[in-house]
Amino acid sequence: METTQNKSPQQVITPAQLLEHLQGHRGLTRRTIEAFPEEAFFKHTIGGMRPFSEMVMELLGIAGPGIKEIATGKMAPLNEHFEHGNQKAKLLQLWDEATDDINTYWAQIAPEQFQQNIKIFGQYDGTVMSSISYFIDNEIHHRGQGYVYLRSLGIEPPAFYER
Amino acid sequence: METTQNKSPQQVITPAQLLEHLQGHRGLTRRTIEAFPEEAFFKHTIGGMRPFSEMVMELLGIAGPGIKEIATGKMAPLNEHFEHGNQKAKLLQLWDEATDDINTYWAQIAPEQFQQNIKIFGQYDGTVMSSISYFIDNEIHHRGQGYVYLRSLGIEPPAFYER
Repeated sequence: METTQNKSPQQVITPAQLLEHLQGHRGLTRRTIEAFPEEAFFKHTIGGMRPFSEMVMELLGIAGPGIKEIATGKMAPLNEHFEHGNQKAKLLQLWDEATDDINTYWAQIAPEQFQQNIKIFGQYDGTVMSSISYFIDNEIHHRGQGYVYLRSLGIEPPAFYER
Repeated sequence: METTQNKSPQQVITPAQLLEHLQGHRGLTRRTIEAFPEEAFFKHTIGGMRPFSEMVMELLGIAGPGIKEIATGKMAPLNEHFEHGNQKAKLLQLWDEATDDINTYWAQIAPEQFQQNIKIFGQYDGTVMSSISYFIDNEIHHRGQGYVYLRSLGIEPPAFYER
């Protein structure tokens, strides 16, 4: 249920709503990861693309560290490689840790920061808002690809509209 | 180039920036449509999914009519079927008409509307903002699937980060 505080007639979207939107997408991606059989998660590919596990590691490298960088101002280069020992559970654990990190650091982002310029990961110029939009869009993009992987394996993906 | 008017320290995102974001994604989807060979656009599928042409018709049924409904308050039911005669050019023409419609009707949306409730297409409860987010997210999701179709055909999709 939305609180009064979470609504503002002056805002197109509030910081609290944007966090909810981001975490809603991350929850759906988590269920997409869960839907993969362990081996297919690390090995199944189509058309020379990466296995879904590698896309997920890209996502792990972006949202959590990106929000932390926005909140703290401390730049760290992109890291898309994580020890997983071919265990989906290991990446799910990192996913959940990132969920907590995002909530923690989000609370430290000032409302006026969203329109400020940033060179995220020391590499990508934009505003804080355009950077966060990119984190979300990139996750939706790759998760949509994961849906095709699942369908090609005869597995029904989670409902897209459920967050 | 961003104008001063397009920036506001009070806003997480301004209406003008949100329109630019939406149209940027629509431009990328247009280039994705263009990348498909005509026959594959209407016939190629993976895992029992729809051909990309049918996903594109879903998108044509959503963004243009949805923004029009938000601007005018006139509800119309979802329509995902368009005459195309198996001509990609016909759907690209409808795409461009929708681009113009979106610009026209966007200008009629008042800033305070984004937080207001709406039952879009007479069916989906949300705010104007959550509805527009859904239009964008759904387009990214299906376009990501189109990327896998293209890769499975040995075709390189357009760069995701170019808008």
